[in-house]
Amino acid sequence: MDSKPSTIAERALEAHSRWRGKLEIMPRVNVDSAESLALAYTPGVAAACLAIKDDPIKAYELTRRWNTVAVVTDGSAVLGLGDIGPDAGMPVMEGKCVLFKAFADVDAFPILVGTKNVDEIVKTVTNIARTFGGINLEDIAAPRCFEIERRLQALLDIPVFHDDQHGTAVVVGAAMLNALRVAGKPIDSARIVINGMGAAGCAIARHLINLGAVDMLLVDRYGILSQGAEEELHMHEAQAELATLTNPGRVKGSLADAMNGADAFIGVSAGNIVSGEMVASMNPSAIVFAMANPTPEIMPNEANAAGALVVGTGRSDYPNQINNVLCFPGMFRGALDCRARAINEPMKRAASFALTGLISAEELSRTNILPKPFDPRVGKAVAAAVAAAARESGVAGI
Amino acid sequence: MDSKPSTIAERALEAHSRWRGKLEIMPRVNVDSAESLALAYTPGVAAACLAIKDDPIKAYELTRRWNTVAVVTDGSAVLGLGDIGPDAGMPVMEGKCVLFKAFADVDAFPILVGTKNVDEIVKTVTNIARTFGGINLEDIAAPRCFEIERRLQALLDIPVFHDDQHGTAVVVGAAMLNALRVAGKPIDSARIVINGMGAAGCAIARHLINLGAVDMLLVDRYGILSQGAEEELHMHEAQAELATLTNPGRVKGSLADAMNGADAFIGVSAGNIVSGEMVASMNPSAIVFAMANPTPEIMPNEANAAGALVVGTGRSDYPNQINNVLCFPGMFRGALDCRARAINEPMKRAASFALTGLISAEELSRTNILPKPFDPRVGKAVAAAVAAAARESGVAGI
Repeated sequence: MDSKPSTIAERALEAHSRWRGKLEIMPRVNVDSAESLALAYTPGVAAACLAIKDDPIKAYELTRRWNTVAVVTDGSAVLGLGDIGPDAGMPVMEGKCVLFKAFADVDAFPILVGTKNVDEIVKTVTNIARTFGGINLEDIAAPRCFEIERRLQALLDIPVFHDDQHGTAVVVGAAMLNALRVAGKPIDSARIVINGMGAAGCAIARHLINLGAVDMLLVDRYGILSQGAEEELHMHEAQAELATLTNPGRVKGSLADAMNGADAFIGVSAGNIVSGEMVASMNPSAIVFAMANPTPEIMPNEANAAGALVVGTGRSDYPNQINNVLCFPGMFRGALDCRARAINEPMKRAASFALTGLISAEELSRTNILPKPFDPRVGKAVAAAVAAAARESGVAGI
Repeated sequence: MDSKPSTIAERALEAHSRWRGKLEIMPRVNVDSAESLALAYTPGVAAACLAIKDDPIKAYELTRRWNTVAVVTDGSAVLGLGDIGPDAGMPVMEGKCVLFKAFADVDAFPILVGTKNVDEIVKTVTNIARTFGGINLEDIAAPRCFEIERRLQALLDIPVFHDDQHGTAVVVGAAMLNALRVAGKPIDSARIVINGMGAAGCAIARHLINLGAVDMLLVDRYGILSQGAEEELHMHEAQAELATLTNPGRVKGSLADAMNGADAFIGVSAGNIVSGEMVASMNPSAIVFAMANPTPEIMPNEANAAGALVVGTGRSDYPNQINNVLCFPGMFRGALDCRARAINEPMKRAASFALTGLISAEELSRTNILPKPFDPRVGKAVAAAVAAAARESGVAGI
């Protein structure tokens, strides 16, 4: 009598009920005899304890710290669902940890923090940080996420990385570099519009500047960010700072105004807010990254019909999926491999270039600007580039 | 040219260097196709998130919370090594997590807390507690451990269990019940001496009282705990409270004085501090549990030579090993299985009785008072008894 669940939501809920958790903590040693128990636990374990007491860095050799990352959330900005709280965010955190292991052999464990107070989040994570080799902040709302990440990285000597910001920025950066190659436009003369100045939008803007972008217009719900109009546009601190780095002409106006004559549009905002007319008003060979999930700012077929040359989304059912999973597993793999003390700009740039480098000139096309999430080269290429950049920029420990 | 490491310490250090961590966080789901990724992660995962948002208890059905325990330490009382700090404590915590999984299929994860401030430890654990189905406190020094456990259990609706206290107490309780059967002495008339009133000693005393012990003398470094002599004996709050529950004659004196005429001695103190003469001064059919590690208060052959009938230690190379691993995996398995809100006295008593019940009258002897750590019945028997006691005492959630 039961019918098989048909929608993705129904199938996913059924699967989660069956799985009862997507992670499991497994022993890497046997404790099935007195001898093996005596080595892994008392009395033998005391020798490992004393070795670390004498030389704390040995924690990276004698325990799993070298390979372990915390996936920390307060549940305040989960997927596109918003502030659903940490308990409800857990399925995403577990999924993220699965991806860390599957794509880069990183042991990742979710930590749900039951407070939204910045001081308390920073204190709590700092207090438990020595358990981990790195901290991945996840689904924490802007602008709180900026301060949390900055303070944690200043306090800790392990990498702290807010994936919703920097993972997205790294992948969008790679996608933009390759899309501009397809369009035949250099990054330093392209006008790039970003709509949605939350965590992801702000990080994308900074990263594109680091990749050479000069002419950018950043748009949030009150219009184009413009220096001197902070109050009028309700800009928070991170937005105000970005306004000083972009929009040199102090243009004001709407998203439609910004897109008029632009070479590229990046949406990290909401579904169906960009019309065909707006895309048609862009320069020839326009690039449209409509990344709102699950419904993009404009559907790819509409954007193409309006004249866009390269169209990307967050979805797997259209070409050019712009997916964080291309970055975060390899980013932490690389950071852990060289015991990096932080994840800095050179490492993020290196990750973007590693991704663009996986698409050869022959393969590159308007529907093929990024490697696929399941491409086994991705994690390794990103990790190697990140570790090399960490060593060159002086933040590597080994 | 290399010779094989020969001592247990050398072999354990070599093994830890080879293992590079004794735990691994493994996916329970595949993410090797677009469909499987869409179920375990976006967009499908949103359905699981929203189900928990609508009904938070669903976190126990759709995530791993139902089976996950934190092993929390500040590293202040690790094994017999003392305050070596949380980093150096990690090999023990990882080992403990291995035992949780191997003996009772509990997913346990170490949390190192980088502060010894009680308020901060309580706040930190409270802030991350929703990640877990239970909290196992480990190797935290007395008397701080008492307050931390009490406050955490009052704040949280998941079980909080300081294994060094209650795990030890449960196993010693079982061992004492069976040893008294061998000696033919009822618990309510036996004089029991405990030496070492730290975390374990205090918990053993309370648990034996709950099991029916009446005539107890508790000894710490300044002598027999005696009501009214709090200052003279430098008693902390937990010790002072225990002094009101024991030693009705307000006896004062040394460990030797306490042992003279006693039926049972329990040492959770330091190696080689009990002499053959002290054992010889005990009543006939004396019971000696010399549990200091690795060197007992008195070696078993010395205790036997001095007339002890039943001798137990913490070591696997002598009969009657009194080992916490007999308790904590099954204790949490039982608590998780019935979603207990706490671990109460009835559950601890039930765990002791479950252990005594695994030794039949025919099997019981002066060298066989407890099941072996590798007996596969142990975890299941303890879990079933604990869950039943939780349900009867009204702390079970399901």
